[in-house]
Amino acid sequence: MKKLLLLPFLLCCLLAFSQQETSSVKKLNVALYIYPGVGLGDLNGPADVFLKAAGLTKGQYKVYTFALQQGQIRTQGNGLKLTADYLESEMPKPDILVIPGGSIGLMDTMCLDPKVIGMLKKYQNQVDVMMSVCTASYLLGKAGILDHHKATTHYFVADDFQTQFPALTLVKDVRYVDEGKVMTCSGVTSGMDGALYLIKKYSGDSIAAMLSRAIQYTPREQEKWPVAPNGMKFDRNWKKRQDSIKQ
Amino acid sequence: MKKLLLLPFLLCCLLAFSQQETSSVKKLNVALYIYPGVGLGDLNGPADVFLKAAGLTKGQYKVYTFALQQGQIRTQGNGLKLTADYLESEMPKPDILVIPGGSIGLMDTMCLDPKVIGMLKKYQNQVDVMMSVCTASYLLGKAGILDHHKATTHYFVADDFQTQFPALTLVKDVRYVDEGKVMTCSGVTSGMDGALYLIKKYSGDSIAAMLSRAIQYTPREQEKWPVAPNGMKFDRNWKKRQDSIKQ
Repeated sequence: MKKLLLLPFLLCCLLAFSQQETSSVKKLNVALYIYPGVGLGDLNGPADVFLKAAGLTKGQYKVYTFALQQGQIRTQGNGLKLTADYLESEMPKPDILVIPGGSIGLMDTMCLDPKVIGMLKKYQNQVDVMMSVCTASYLLGKAGILDHHKATTHYFVADDFQTQFPALTLVKDVRYVDEGKVMTCSGVTSGMDGALYLIKKYSGDSIAAMLSRAIQYTPREQEKWPVAPNGMKFDRNWKKRQDSIKQ
Repeated sequence: MKKLLLLPFLLCCLLAFSQQETSSVKKLNVALYIYPGVGLGDLNGPADVFLKAAGLTKGQYKVYTFALQQGQIRTQGNGLKLTADYLESEMPKPDILVIPGGSIGLMDTMCLDPKVIGMLKKYQNQVDVMMSVCTASYLLGKAGILDHHKATTHYFVADDFQTQFPALTLVKDVRYVDEGKVMTCSGVTSGMDGALYLIKKYSGDSIAAMLSRAIQYTPREQEKWPVAPNGMKFDRNWKKRQDSIKQ
């Protein structure tokens, strides 16, 4: 009889323990910044990882997009038509802020836009982590968020990135760099590596491994970067020279 | 003097030749099917690759989304808000048709939808290539498009896929299977491998390599699939058994 009573007792303990476990897990708002010309891969690598993590953890992550303007947004190269969930001024307070990149020309324009740079500065100390993907590191650099930090970016523009922002220390041959409150990812697909790293940090090894299998992608921190043929390098002044030849 | 005249002549020949080269390249319409619950990674891996290829090839690819219904479409797990470029009935004739997957429950539902299966059957002989990503292989299977073909799918449901569609031959440990007019990709991210393979086929090694560097992703055809812990396998009857226990 005693043994029969023990089983429901143990089950109750287990239930109470599991509920306590669930309630002690930090809930996280994951905000993804979208804008006209946003790189689809830069955005959707992390978006897909966090959305699937929300499913696997039964809602530890609330994932949403936000924009600085109303209306439909086309991704880079007349790509997909998106509509943001929120205007930035109305969105729930983010814990993780993901800033995807776009073309270098667009990043240069956005670096001069006080609304974009002001938004990044505003959230710098409010969020748990701000993570850039690919060329969006230029925006964080311009906002001064990477000063005195290690950082990375798309392999092809890396030397230019270091030149533009001498107060940061460029790290090459990596998929991402974690500096606590700020993370930078390398080119496009490395946003998945950065996001899976954050899932590991916030939800543990088991959920991160489950996600990695679910999307059939093995993340890594280190990776030898590609090398462009004939040692070709990004040249910021190429277009200027072409324009002056035409005149 | 003769030598001085030769240079412009050679330049003209080169220009004429390069223009001929450009005009002989086959232009391709790439149609991406979107529907409520579509997997974001399944869709956007190929979408990003083809959109970037359109940029690199100066328009060899025209990329657009289509839907069977009007209105906004949320991706899987209350994800991103998309709007299709076209209704299926109004879209330009596709050359490459990409069918991204979603949850197995949703695929089961869509397999019973005559509009979805009818659409796939309609395009079967009209397109150059129909390519499924992840679980969308179930839809192609249901439409009979994979009968007497080799095919693959997401690693976790692969054995079930073979059971459901005995007329196809399942291929394991691959990222994609090319059977000419029909291609099937494995889980989520392998859609990038399938798309990069098609870029190589239609635009050549150099453009494909450039794209691979641009998104910092190395595609491959073969890959040892992940193994779920404790040999756990997808069990189609699990939910049914749970429901019967509850009754």
